[in-house]
Amino acid sequence: MSKEKDLYEKIVELAARRGFFWRSYEIYGGVAGFVDLGPLGAALKKNIEEKWREWFILKHQDFIVEIETPVITPRAVLEASGHLEHFTDPIVECRKCGRKFRADHLIEDEIGEPVEGLKPHELSKIIKERNIKCPMCGGNLSEVREFSLLFQTTIGPYSENVGFLRPEAAQGMFTSFKRVYEAMRGKLPLGIGQIGKVGRNEISPRQGVIRLREFTIMEVEFFFDPEEPTCPLLPEVENDELRLITCNLKMKGIKEPLIVTVMEGLEKGLIVNEWLAYFLAIGQRFVKDLGIPLEKQVFEEKLPHERAHYSTQTFDQLVKVSRWGWIEVAGHSYRGRYDLSRHIAYSRKDLTVYKQFKEPKILKVEELEIDVEKLKEFYGEHYTKIVREFSESDKNILLRELESKGYLSIAGFKIPKEFFKVKTVAKKVKGKRFIPHVVEPSFGAERLLYATLEYAYSVRNGRVVLKLPKDIAPISVAVFPLVNKEPIVKIAKETYENLKSMKLRVLYDVSGSIGRRYARADEIGVPLALTVDYRSVEDDTVTLRNRDTWEQIRVKRKEVYRKIPLYIKGEISFEQLGEPA
Amino acid sequence: MSKEKDLYEKIVELAARRGFFWRSYEIYGGVAGFVDLGPLGAALKKNIEEKWREWFILKHQDFIVEIETPVITPRAVLEASGHLEHFTDPIVECRKCGRKFRADHLIEDEIGEPVEGLKPHELSKIIKERNIKCPMCGGNLSEVREFSLLFQTTIGPYSENVGFLRPEAAQGMFTSFKRVYEAMRGKLPLGIGQIGKVGRNEISPRQGVIRLREFTIMEVEFFFDPEEPTCPLLPEVENDELRLITCNLKMKGIKEPLIVTVMEGLEKGLIVNEWLAYFLAIGQRFVKDLGIPLEKQVFEEKLPHERAHYSTQTFDQLVKVSRWGWIEVAGHSYRGRYDLSRHIAYSRKDLTVYKQFKEPKILKVEELEIDVEKLKEFYGEHYTKIVREFSESDKNILLRELESKGYLSIAGFKIPKEFFKVKTVAKKVKGKRFIPHVVEPSFGAERLLYATLEYAYSVRNGRVVLKLPKDIAPISVAVFPLVNKEPIVKIAKETYENLKSMKLRVLYDVSGSIGRRYARADEIGVPLALTVDYRSVEDDTVTLRNRDTWEQIRVKRKEVYRKIPLYIKGEISFEQLGEPA
Repeated sequence: MSKEKDLYEKIVELAARRGFFWRSYEIYGGVAGFVDLGPLGAALKKNIEEKWREWFILKHQDFIVEIETPVITPRAVLEASGHLEHFTDPIVECRKCGRKFRADHLIEDEIGEPVEGLKPHELSKIIKERNIKCPMCGGNLSEVREFSLLFQTTIGPYSENVGFLRPEAAQGMFTSFKRVYEAMRGKLPLGIGQIGKVGRNEISPRQGVIRLREFTIMEVEFFFDPEEPTCPLLPEVENDELRLITCNLKMKGIKEPLIVTVMEGLEKGLIVNEWLAYFLAIGQRFVKDLGIPLEKQVFEEKLPHERAHYSTQTFDQLVKVSRWGWIEVAGHSYRGRYDLSRHIAYSRKDLTVYKQFKEPKILKVEELEIDVEKLKEFYGEHYTKIVREFSESDKNILLRELESKGYLSIAGFKIPKEFFKVKTVAKKVKGKRFIPHVVEPSFGAERLLYATLEYAYSVRNGRVVLKLPKDIAPISVAVFPLVNKEPIVKIAKETYENLKSMKLRVLYDVSGSIGRRYARADEIGVPLALTVDYRSVEDDTVTLRNRDTWEQIRVKRKEVYRKIPLYIKGEISFEQLGEPA
Repeated sequence: MSKEKDLYEKIVELAARRGFFWRSYEIYGGVAGFVDLGPLGAALKKNIEEKWREWFILKHQDFIVEIETPVITPRAVLEASGHLEHFTDPIVECRKCGRKFRADHLIEDEIGEPVEGLKPHELSKIIKERNIKCPMCGGNLSEVREFSLLFQTTIGPYSENVGFLRPEAAQGMFTSFKRVYEAMRGKLPLGIGQIGKVGRNEISPRQGVIRLREFTIMEVEFFFDPEEPTCPLLPEVENDELRLITCNLKMKGIKEPLIVTVMEGLEKGLIVNEWLAYFLAIGQRFVKDLGIPLEKQVFEEKLPHERAHYSTQTFDQLVKVSRWGWIEVAGHSYRGRYDLSRHIAYSRKDLTVYKQFKEPKILKVEELEIDVEKLKEFYGEHYTKIVREFSESDKNILLRELESKGYLSIAGFKIPKEFFKVKTVAKKVKGKRFIPHVVEPSFGAERLLYATLEYAYSVRNGRVVLKLPKDIAPISVAVFPLVNKEPIVKIAKETYENLKSMKLRVLYDVSGSIGRRYARADEIGVPLALTVDYRSVEDDTVTLRNRDTWEQIRVKRKEVYRKIPLYIKGEISFEQLGEPA
């Protein structure tokens, strides 16, 4: 008896056959972690991106803008961002067969307990204690070490110019923050968004389109003044309900989410910032627009050891899918001032923002001083050079550098923090420079594409009907001549050409019975099928068929050009398209 | 006296200040060959891509589709495509200071003669004969060698799994050809298009946005049956004039292009294929839609040694820009069956297409045979294994492999072509398998973006007016309250919100005099400025100002929502928007 395919397999089969997606480089045996989007998949992804753009950019276009920065990133940027140090997974190698495994996954498979967040030496210890062997050949395993998830390359002909593929789009927004801020005429809050490819060199990805080594990120870095953290748009979403799995619940082992409104989540201190809360709600509405109901979405707060190195609070936005359970489709992170202060420290460029006070204030200001006597003692005659360079430098930038690195590079020396003193003095000032804080909603497009397909998948009378939301379906309307005869074909072709010239995505199909053609269109989620029949020849009407109900109505042909776009956008109902057929 | 800036510098300055583009990673000193697109640049590029999509995909959506494949490409693909071997530039190193140079450019700068297409040993010879030294330190130069322009990386944890960033999107279309062909229900001709990032690791790019190491390609691989090479859409473009600089003209040293219609170009044999000719014309219309007039576009045929390794005829589509002269914005190549036959040979997968004859035909068919006696002599007892594997393999695939590689890999042996015989026999067959031929139009988005800005740049009364085509301008309309007072501001805000909810790109600006606001909007090419003034309060009309003529008309506010999109799309004229103000 052959095992019935699960929903994931059914979608993968449909996706490959009809042209949504398939494994890349199949003719060469495929490469894990890469996927090709076929004609329907590329169109669906584009529509998902456009929907994201509506929710995150266009709706807020007075203060959120979209930019595009390179995938290839020089080493200096990812050193500053901390990715060079922190963006790793633990790896272990079999000493006998040479196979390599992700150590935490291997251990979890063997002992059935989570080990996320443990250090390599701790994982090595478990392997020894539990006597865990290579799952493929039974050989002994090596010590666990860190494996960098960055794809490395070289920029230009000099081998020392190391570069990487970006693991997130965010760093392009941080390194260009000052330029964008100035082009937008120096106003906060300011969101900088981007849609683009990223690379994460996973050790052994095995979940198809769910875990990719190359995928598309849709990300906003939202910069605001930490002294003015209120979100004026909050009233729009304050009553939206969020399903939160907080750290507190997780530590108590409670799996059921807490359902709170956005406002309650803020008032109870479950969400640390209004903008973070606002984007949780917007993110939830966006994903709902893809056809994924609210009760299939939760926000899981990450425990300190689960969070990325830059984050002080993170909620993963999870969506339930059949085979894989709850999968992350977005991360919402409060990145604070981490990234900008690191880039100030590492680039020694001023990325702060100036704010003028209404009237001068007495403020406590940090001042950096250098211990000249101690310098003389340890650096001898070089001390004059060091003092000169120190006094010519921007002390605020040096303060950030000292804070980030624990030392300062001056005149070619690495001078440890013991040589400096940070004095807090009260000063009357007209304004001040500060580092904006950042909240980041970040979505993965391919996972959303898969989840969208799964929630659209339905079966009626043994046939697949893909109930994609009308405005994200890859093809908006199918045009069928009832029979392959003139003048029916001529009328159908003309209708098709007219719809096409409106830049709609249209399908024309003349082959097979009309029933088979409806079925083929249903299977790829075409919301409307327009049929030209014998009556069309007489009175220039056509029928329109509703994918989801299979109902048909009859409409004057000259009206379809105006009405179809309104129907696709959800501005009129199916009944408003015409008269019952 | 300070030198006046040239147009390129003026555009670069404007681009950085207003947010079109700037050098990436500036805070770390910048990296040559990478550019960030700011808010306006990203929007402009998106509009250029959308325009390309209209011309190349949507207009032909019944037989040209768009897909998306990864940037990261395993070695096997680029070995088959020939890029591993051929995608190189000659490099030379100074033995004294260690600097590296692109050898052909260095020699051309020194001797003032073109040396394109010469082999490394020929370039080395010129360096020796002409006693060319390092231009930076005067040191002796090394031998010239080939430098791979592929960005190299490793996929996963095994160092032998080498991958590269794709240098063109094309290979993703070839490796997935069979999947797309089947999803499109097995019909030819079939175009597969893609917009995406590519990487070319240039030795020392120095032309800013014109020569990038990472850029966006917009490419169609158009597959057709070489026995049915006619283009039914030709009548649409047959009278379009093309400016051709043919190989013949180039060899005669004639710089003036030959002006022929598409039909004449084909009849005179200047263009080898109808589809190639068709896409030259479509490409020219597309670029004209970006505001670049036909007389500033030429098609330069590449000489055999200038052509890429896969091409039998190539026209570069050139556009004239101020500082750099004629620059390539597209390549139109006849790639024939090169790529598919290489992938058949290297993957041993059948990428051919079957065609049934109306009735059986007697055809000359190539048959591959193996010389068993000779095998016995050279391979001894292994010969049985070889013969068995040979007889079980698809002979047509082996034929392609033998043709591409000059040997066959069978049973672990590399067996040279002397062991095989290709017999041509006459056979009665019902149909045949063949390898489609390919024509490829391939555009670079960032160069088009720069050229678009240059052709839009104009100066009026000492102020810059960016006369971008209305439908590709990053912002469609600016909304200004004449003064910062109620109820004028309220009406302006409401109008802005309404326009925004229509998903238009809109700018709201209240700061500074109205004249300054017009000037700021002109400088970034906003086609329409909508002003709410005192009269608006009385009769709910607003003024609309034409960026290009500075004319103003007055229109009922409730009509702008319907009329502005029509004006932006070019469906109504400025005069049709309202009454003279």
